[in-house]
Amino acid sequence: MAANPQVIAFDVFGTVVDWYSSIAAEVDALGLGVPGGPFALAWRAGYAPAMERVRRGELPWMRLDDLHRLILDRVLAEFGIGGLDDDAKSRLNKAWHRLDPWPDSVAGLQRLKQCFVICTLSNGNLGLLTDMAKRAGLPWDCVLSAEVFQHYKPDPETYLGVARVFDLEPAQVMLAAAHQADLDGARACGLQTAYIERPLEFGPDRPKDVARDPRNTCHAVDIEDLARQLGA
Amino acid sequence: MAANPQVIAFDVFGTVVDWYSSIAAEVDALGLGVPGGPFALAWRAGYAPAMERVRRGELPWMRLDDLHRLILDRVLAEFGIGGLDDDAKSRLNKAWHRLDPWPDSVAGLQRLKQCFVICTLSNGNLGLLTDMAKRAGLPWDCVLSAEVFQHYKPDPETYLGVARVFDLEPAQVMLAAAHQADLDGARACGLQTAYIERPLEFGPDRPKDVARDPRNTCHAVDIEDLARQLGA
Repeated sequence: MAANPQVIAFDVFGTVVDWYSSIAAEVDALGLGVPGGPFALAWRAGYAPAMERVRRGELPWMRLDDLHRLILDRVLAEFGIGGLDDDAKSRLNKAWHRLDPWPDSVAGLQRLKQCFVICTLSNGNLGLLTDMAKRAGLPWDCVLSAEVFQHYKPDPETYLGVARVFDLEPAQVMLAAAHQADLDGARACGLQTAYIERPLEFGPDRPKDVARDPRNTCHAVDIEDLARQLGA
Repeated sequence: MAANPQVIAFDVFGTVVDWYSSIAAEVDALGLGVPGGPFALAWRAGYAPAMERVRRGELPWMRLDDLHRLILDRVLAEFGIGGLDDDAKSRLNKAWHRLDPWPDSVAGLQRLKQCFVICTLSNGNLGLLTDMAKRAGLPWDCVLSAEVFQHYKPDPETYLGVARVFDLEPAQVMLAAAHQADLDGARACGLQTAYIERPLEFGPDRPKDVARDPRNTCHAVDIEDLARQLGA
């Protein structure tokens, strides 16, 4: 295996926090008469295409909070929900600031933090990631975001941006993520990569393929397992 | 007094950490035959003019690590020190990543963190601030820097940038700093301001005027005092 990295940058949605259960529970709690799970999936399904429009230049740079709101307005219409005023929509949109961590995340990050610099590298904006970390107790050394680099992953500016912030070679940085496309982007830039299995990212009815890809530096069942593998 | 802020952004050099003693001790430990205190003062004296050159566009945007290195090379020559190789200069330049906190800083920030989002707003770069926080135990919720906004304080883009990151009005953000010019810049942008007395910022032989300026929202002897005044 390669020499241990100095910095481990984490994808956040799905990798560190369980967006599906958290968003579904918030929607269910509103009593809108729609099932939270499918609503969460529909909201999240709008995420990649919206960022793709920013990456292609069809939309100006905007933060994920604003993209989430654009998608929310459409999904509310699709589900036939018309009764929310603007304040209620803003509060619901901030549900993405209140996502719960997976059970291993805080303990695993605490272990890794003893040996490595740990940071986020998320398409979420800085305010979102800061609120989330404070509420969930995620012990980041530094919050990095697409907002800092004004590029969304998988643009290389994001992965190389982390190495540049810490004045390191790309191979001295590891990206940890539950999504192969994100790891592919990081690997193409020379970063080490750690795949984190999150078979229930899309809920209990849509188990995810978590097969090992030998191109990754590490393959871990969760963040505590990654800490063990890296000797933390 | 105004309603309490939601976010408190801290100036760092001099306000949270004691650069004078830390740099002086590192220089003394090198045994270069020059007194650490005057060397530290000379190095720091180059800081404002160097940033001013970036702000005026005479130098391209560069991070504080790089400005510190430009100044270091000049100060080494002024002090007649020729024996350091490039690696040794790079290690010495990173002394700014290893500054010690004032005795009240960690406890005061821990108290404030219970009630407010606390972040840096420093001209130091992200890697420098992250290394410093990890070593000193500074419990930031988020590390913000001139590097994020590509502007040095007191450019308004920095103060307004903090409000924008957290989707707040300027008056919902407080800048805490030991320097009136920094607070003047923040106040002009509509932020609340807290002056932190640091009479020994420039060492024991150059006590600083820490007179109260009534235009500031708060005047505190240290960060624990600020926490008390804000009810944290």
